[in-house]
Amino acid sequence: MKKIENIKQNGLNFSRRLRRTPFTSSVEKCGVKGFSVVNHTLLPKAFETSIEEDYWHLNSAVQIWDVGVQRQVEIKGPDAFKLVQFMTPRSLKNMKKGSCYYIPLTDETGGMINDPVLLKHSDNHFWLSIADSDVLLWAKGLAIGLKFRVMISEPDVWPLAIQGPLATSLLVDVFGKKIKELKYFHFSHFEFEGTSQIIARSGYSKVSGFEIYLEGFEYGEKLWDLIWNAGKKYNLSPGCPNLIDRIEAGLLSFGNEMTNQTTPLETGLEKYCQVNGSHDFIGKEALKRQKSEGITKCIRGVIFDGPPCPPCAEPWHLYSKSGIKIGNVTSAVFSPRLKKNIGLGVIKKPFWNDGTSIKVAVPGRILNNGKVSNLPFS
Amino acid sequence: MKKIENIKQNGLNFSRRLRRTPFTSSVEKCGVKGFSVVNHTLLPKAFETSIEEDYWHLNSAVQIWDVGVQRQVEIKGPDAFKLVQFMTPRSLKNMKKGSCYYIPLTDETGGMINDPVLLKHSDNHFWLSIADSDVLLWAKGLAIGLKFRVMISEPDVWPLAIQGPLATSLLVDVFGKKIKELKYFHFSHFEFEGTSQIIARSGYSKVSGFEIYLEGFEYGEKLWDLIWNAGKKYNLSPGCPNLIDRIEAGLLSFGNEMTNQTTPLETGLEKYCQVNGSHDFIGKEALKRQKSEGITKCIRGVIFDGPPCPPCAEPWHLYSKSGIKIGNVTSAVFSPRLKKNIGLGVIKKPFWNDGTSIKVAVPGRILNNGKVSNLPFS
Repeated sequence: MKKIENIKQNGLNFSRRLRRTPFTSSVEKCGVKGFSVVNHTLLPKAFETSIEEDYWHLNSAVQIWDVGVQRQVEIKGPDAFKLVQFMTPRSLKNMKKGSCYYIPLTDETGGMINDPVLLKHSDNHFWLSIADSDVLLWAKGLAIGLKFRVMISEPDVWPLAIQGPLATSLLVDVFGKKIKELKYFHFSHFEFEGTSQIIARSGYSKVSGFEIYLEGFEYGEKLWDLIWNAGKKYNLSPGCPNLIDRIEAGLLSFGNEMTNQTTPLETGLEKYCQVNGSHDFIGKEALKRQKSEGITKCIRGVIFDGPPCPPCAEPWHLYSKSGIKIGNVTSAVFSPRLKKNIGLGVIKKPFWNDGTSIKVAVPGRILNNGKVSNLPFS
Repeated sequence: MKKIENIKQNGLNFSRRLRRTPFTSSVEKCGVKGFSVVNHTLLPKAFETSIEEDYWHLNSAVQIWDVGVQRQVEIKGPDAFKLVQFMTPRSLKNMKKGSCYYIPLTDETGGMINDPVLLKHSDNHFWLSIADSDVLLWAKGLAIGLKFRVMISEPDVWPLAIQGPLATSLLVDVFGKKIKELKYFHFSHFEFEGTSQIIARSGYSKVSGFEIYLEGFEYGEKLWDLIWNAGKKYNLSPGCPNLIDRIEAGLLSFGNEMTNQTTPLETGLEKYCQVNGSHDFIGKEALKRQKSEGITKCIRGVIFDGPPCPPCAEPWHLYSKSGIKIGNVTSAVFSPRLKKNIGLGVIKKPFWNDGTSIKVAVPGRILNNGKVSNLPFS
C-alpha cells in the first residue's frame, strides 16, 4: 500500500493557466510551501509552520490569508435579482443591501453546483463569492437561455481574509473604529489609498474575522504590506484556511463534502432551503420530492482513535459494526484539542446517529473504533 | 527579483477535491514528480526525466499519458445537435458519426469558453472532450434556459493517450490490425476485457498517436498494465503533454493562450469559424462584427536568444524596438532543436509580421533580440 504522505511531496507545475492573485508574491516572500488550485487560481495551503501550530496561532492571535481564489461572479441589471433567486433554494426576499447570505446553488436534480456567499450591493447588483466551480459559466448559460437582462462578469476583486481573535483590533488600527460596527455577515465600504473598498465580517473559520474584497489587482502588495506592518504588534502571521479548525467547526468544502451528487438537504443545509416556499428555483421539484420522502444519507462527523491520520485524498470507506458499507469520509485530520482523528463524510440512514459505532478504512487498514458525531465537534 | 524556477519547487496539497484519475496510482508507481490541476483533476506534468529528454523520446519512440483530465461532457437527446451547434461558430452540418471536430466554444462577446474536441456518436449523442473550464455547467445552464430536450452529464470516461511514432505498432499489438484503419480525428470501437471501448487517432502533440476513451474507472489499472507490458519492446515510457513539442507545433492551451478575453479569430482559429454561415451560435453578432472590422491582435510565435528561459507563470510583456508595449508571451520554453527560446503570445497589429524585431521582458531583464515567428515554428 502506498503511503499517502508521500504524495504530498509532489510538485505543482506552474503555468499562466493557474492564475496568481495580487497576494501571491507576498505569500512567496513569507515562505509559502504548498498550494492548492481553486477556480483556476493559486491558494496557499502551507507555510513554514505545521498545521497544528497554525491552528493554535489562529485561535489565539490573528492571521492574514490570501483567499483570492474566492472569485466573484458579478450579476448586474434589471433581472439580476430574478436570476440569483432562480439559482438558489434559499429565499432572498428579505435580504437587505449590505448583507451576505450563504446560499447553496442547485442543478435540475437538486445536486449542488456551488455554495457561494452572496453579497447584495443593491436590488440590481449582486456578487456571488464562489467555491471551486465555474459559476460564471453557469450563470451566463442560464441568462442567455432565459434572455434575462443582466450583465455577468468576473470583476477585478480579490478577497484577503484577516482571521483570529485579534482581527478586530488589527483592522481598527488600519481602517478605523467603524470596523467594530460591522455585524456578522454584513459588509461596508472603507477608504484605502483613495479608493473605496468593501470589508465584510466573515471568513472560512470558526474564529471571528473579516474579508477584504480588494478591488484592483494593482493594490495587492500595498494592502498586504499595510496590514502586515500594522499586524506586528498583534503577532500576525501568514496563514490559510486551517483544516483542523474547518473540520472541528463542521465547515463543508465544495468538491470535498459536496458535489453535484449531493443535495443541500443531504449536506445539513436545510435551513438555507425554502423548498416549499413561493419562489421558483432550479431543482425545486427534485428537492420537494426528496424533502417529502425523507433523505437517506447525510453529512456527519466521524471520530476515531489511532495515530494522526494522513490527508484524505480519496474517499475512505465507512462500515457498520457488522461490516455493511455505510458511507465515506471525504476530509479528515488529527485534532490536537480532542486528541483524536476527526473527519467529515456522508453516512447512510440509519447509521448516522450520534455515537453509533463504525469502522473507518484509512489507507492501509481498517480501524474498528470509529464513532459518528454531531457537527460541530464539541 | 525572485527566481521563477524556485516556485516550481512548491508542493501541491492533495484533497479529495482534486480528483484522481483511474491512472493516478500507475503514474505514482512510475515516479511522477509533479502535477498540474485541470478540470478539478490531477494531470501528471513531470517524471524522472527532463522535459528535453522527454521531447526526444516522444519524437523517437512511444509514450503513455494520463490525460484523464480531459473530461467528457455528454449531450444526449432530441435537441443534442441543436445545442452543440448553438455553442460553436464551427458548422457541424457535414460532421459524420465516428468523427472528431476541434471546436471553439464562444460566449456572447465572442470570447473563448473552451476549445474541446467534439466526438459524434450519433445525431442525438455527442461528447465534448474539454480543456480547463466547467463546460458541463455552461451546457446545462443553456439547456435549462432554452428548455432543450437533452440529458447532460459527465460520464465515467477517462482518456489515456498513446503518443509517438511507435504508437501504431504498439496499439496494433494490443487491439489488432483495425487500429491501422483509423483515420486522423476519427474514432472506432475496440474490445477490451469484454467491454467496447472508443479509440481515436488524435492527441495533444505534433507526433502521431491515439487517445483511448476508457469507459469505467475500475478498468484503469488493467488497461495501463496491458499497454505498459506490451510497450516494453517499443521503449514505452510514461509522459505527459510536452511543452517543447506543444510550443514548436503552435498548439494552444486554453487558460494560457486563450481566455474569455480572446476570440477564436484572434487565436488563429478562423478556419473553425463559419461566422457568416447560416447557423446561429452564441457570439455570432460579435464575431461577425470583428471579422468585418478586422482583428487588431493575434496569437503569434516569438523566438529569442539567451539562456533557457524559466516557465512562464505570468504573462511576459513584449515591446516594439522603440519600446511600445505590443503584447504578452503566455507560454515559453527552450527548444533544443532550434537552440533558441520559443514562446506563444498575443501580439498587436502591425507588429505581428514574421521576422519583426521585438523585445521580450523575461523575469528580471529585457531581452532585445526577439523576433516574431509564424506558427508552427519551422
